[in-house]
Amino acid sequence: MGAVRYELIKQCKQSGARLGRLHTPHGVIETPIFMPVGTQATVKTMTPEELKNIGSQIILSNTYHLYLRPGHKLVEKAGGLHKFMNWDKPILTDSGGFQVFSLSDLRDITEEGVTFKSHLDGSKHFLSPERAIEIENSLGADIIMAFDECLPYPCDYDYAKNSLHRTIRWAERCLNAHKNTEKQALFGIIQGGMYRDLREESVREMVKLDFPGYAIGGLSIGEPKPIMYEVLDWTAHLLPENKARYLMGIGSPDALIEGAIRGIDMFDCVLPTRIARNGTAFTSRGRVVIKNAKYAEDFGPLDAECDCYTCRNYSRAYLRHLFKAEEILGPRLVTIHNLRFLLRLMENVRQAILEDRLLDFRDEFFEKYGYNESSRNF
Amino acid sequence: MGAVRYELIKQCKQSGARLGRLHTPHGVIETPIFMPVGTQATVKTMTPEELKNIGSQIILSNTYHLYLRPGHKLVEKAGGLHKFMNWDKPILTDSGGFQVFSLSDLRDITEEGVTFKSHLDGSKHFLSPERAIEIENSLGADIIMAFDECLPYPCDYDYAKNSLHRTIRWAERCLNAHKNTEKQALFGIIQGGMYRDLREESVREMVKLDFPGYAIGGLSIGEPKPIMYEVLDWTAHLLPENKARYLMGIGSPDALIEGAIRGIDMFDCVLPTRIARNGTAFTSRGRVVIKNAKYAEDFGPLDAECDCYTCRNYSRAYLRHLFKAEEILGPRLVTIHNLRFLLRLMENVRQAILEDRLLDFRDEFFEKYGYNESSRNF
Ligand SMILES: [Zn+2]
Ligand SMILES: [Zn+2]
Repeated sequence: MGAVRYELIKQCKQSGARLGRLHTPHGVIETPIFMPVGTQATVKTMTPEELKNIGSQIILSNTYHLYLRPGHKLVEKAGGLHKFMNWDKPILTDSGGFQVFSLSDLRDITEEGVTFKSHLDGSKHFLSPERAIEIENSLGADIIMAFDECLPYPCDYDYAKNSLHRTIRWAERCLNAHKNTEKQALFGIIQGGMYRDLREESVREMVKLDFPGYAIGGLSIGEPKPIMYEVLDWTAHLLPENKARYLMGIGSPDALIEGAIRGIDMFDCVLPTRIARNGTAFTSRGRVVIKNAKYAEDFGPLDAECDCYTCRNYSRAYLRHLFKAEEILGPRLVTIHNLRFLLRLMENVRQAILEDRLLDFRDEFFEKYGYNESSRNF
Repeated sequence: MGAVRYELIKQCKQSGARLGRLHTPHGVIETPIFMPVGTQATVKTMTPEELKNIGSQIILSNTYHLYLRPGHKLVEKAGGLHKFMNWDKPILTDSGGFQVFSLSDLRDITEEGVTFKSHLDGSKHFLSPERAIEIENSLGADIIMAFDECLPYPCDYDYAKNSLHRTIRWAERCLNAHKNTEKQALFGIIQGGMYRDLREESVREMVKLDFPGYAIGGLSIGEPKPIMYEVLDWTAHLLPENKARYLMGIGSPDALIEGAIRGIDMFDCVLPTRIARNGTAFTSRGRVVIKNAKYAEDFGPLDAECDCYTCRNYSRAYLRHLFKAEEILGPRLVTIHNLRFLLRLMENVRQAILEDRLLDFRDEFFEKYGYNESSRNF
C-alpha cells in the first residue's frame, strides 16, 4: 500500500470533470481542490486554524525555500514540517526545481543535477533528483514531487525534447531515491513544453514508471491561456484514471474551472495570497482593488455573497483604511477572503460535478464575474 | 448618571493598591487593567476576537491618527469607532494632544489651541479643546480624554507652570464642549511636569472640575523611573477615591506593578505590540529576542509558563524562522503573546490585591523576571 490513493467518485456527464477523494496519511481530501501555498512553512498572514476555518484541506510548501531557510535538517529535528508549522492536515511539497530555474542566479544544469546560487545570500548549492528527495523526505510532506526542469516559454523544440528526456531520467532516479513510500507519495511531473508529441511522450514514459499521482508542469509560465488549455486537452485524458492529477501553479478562478473541466483534481498558486497583500480581492462580481477612492465610504462587505470572516464583519471602507494606513490586519483580512473565495469556488465546482452541470456553472460564474465582457477582468 | 462609574472593591492591605470595576456603556472592566493600543482603529496585527481571547477588556485608540486618516466624520458615518473596527467592548480615545506635541512638525501653541502639520503629508491642521472633543464625540469611545499639553522632559519650572495653567483652562473648555455625557465619559489629565507643587495644584484644580475620571499624564517621557514613581507618590493619593485613575503611556511589567501599588487602575502603552513586531517578547524569565541564534534549535515554547495560543502551539525555533523569513505570522504570534503576558500579569496583580499580597507578588515577579539582577533586563 502506498501513502496516497485516489478514489474516483463520479464524472460530470456534462463536462467530464472528476469528483474524487484523495486518501492521505493526514486525512482525506475532496477533489477537485485548490491548495493554499505556504512557501516558507506558513501561508502568508494565516494561522493553521484560520486555514481550516475557511475549508483548506491541504497546503503546499516549497522545498527550495525550506532547504535554504531554516534548513530541512532543522525541520526534521523539529519533528517534520507538520509539527514545525502546527498543521496536522495533508501537505504537498514541490521539489525545488521550479524555484531553481526561476529564482536563483547562475544555475548550471548537467545530467547529474543543478548548481545554483541562493537568492538570499548568493551561496552556492547543488540539487539533484537524489538530493531533492532526501530533502523532501526530511520535510515529511504527504505528497512530494519529482525533481524536474521547468522550461521557459517560449522554448525551442530541440531544447524542450532534450530537457524532457533528462526530466524522465531524473524521474526514475527520484523513484529509486525515495524510500519512505508508506508515508509519502512521490508524484511524477509531465513536461514537454507546448509541443503535443513531447507532452504525449512525457505521459507515456511517466506512466510506465507508475507514480502514485501525476502533475502537469510547465504551464502558466507566460503562455496565453488558450495554449494552456490546449496542452491540458492533449495531456490530461492520457493519464491513468485511478491516479490524482495536479495542475501546478494555477489559481485564477477561470483557470480553476477550466482545469476541472479538463479532468484536473488539484491546483495550487500564490495568486490569491499575493494579490491580497496588495489589497486586490476576488469577488463574485470580479476583482476589487480596495484602495480605490470609490470605496472610501462604501460600508458594505467586500463581497455580499461571501461567507468569510472578513465579509461578515468588516466594510470595504474599513479594509481600504487598513491598506491606506499599512496595517497588517488589511492583508490578513483580504487573504482570508481570497482563499475562502477559491476554496468555496471549488466547493461549488464539486457540487456542479455531482449535479452534472459544470459547464452551466462555468457560464453562470463567468457571466457574473465579468469574464464575458470585452475587457476581461481576470 | 454619567457614562462610566468606578466601583472600588477593596484595597490591598499590604500595598494600598486598588481592586475595582469600571462600569461603561460597553461593559464592565475589572481593574487594575492594561489597555492594548489600537492607534489606527486596529491593534496592530490582531483581530478583535483574538484580543478578546487573550482577555482584553478595553482598548485605546488615537484621536490624532484617526482624525488625519480616515477622518472622524468617516468613522461617524460608519456608525462610530466600535462598529467601524468591529469591537463591541469599551474603547478609550486620547485627545490627540500627545501626538501633536510628539509627532507633528512646526506646531504653534496659543491660548486658543495648536496649529500643526500632519506627519503624513505636511498638511496644516488646528486642534483646540473644542475641536478635540468634537472629534472624540464623532469617534464615540466610552472614555474620552481632555485636550492638554504634554511637556517634554526636562522642562523648566516657569514653562511647566504656565503650560499647566493653560491645560487647566483647556480642561474646563473641554468640559463645556462635551455634550454626549450619557454615552462618553470625559477624563481630565493631571500635568505639572516633575514639580511637586505643580502636580498638587493640577490635582486640586482638576478635582474641582469634577471629571468622572482622571489620568496622570506627562510621565514615561524619558525621565528615570524613580522620578516617575515619585511623581505618582505625590499625585495619585490626592485623587478622589471614587474615580478611576489612569496612568498614560506605561507598559513595562515593572512599571505596571509599581503603578498598581501606587493606586493606579488603568494603563496603556504601545510597548508590547511594538517590540513584538521586532521579535522581542516578555517572558516570565525576562525578555527574549527571538532572532538570536541561540534559539535556532530551541523547540520549546516562548514562555513555558504562558497559556497563550503562541506558547501552546509553536516553538522558539519556528518563531525565529518566521522572523528571519520576515513572515507576518511572526509579529502576529509574538503580539498575541506579549499582550497576553501583560493582561495575565494584571490578572495576577488583581488576585494579589484580593489576597493582600501585592508587595510579595512584586518581589517574586521581579526576582524571576531578572529585575533584581545588576544588569536589569527591563
Ligand atoms: Zn469574503
Ligand atoms: Zn505566550
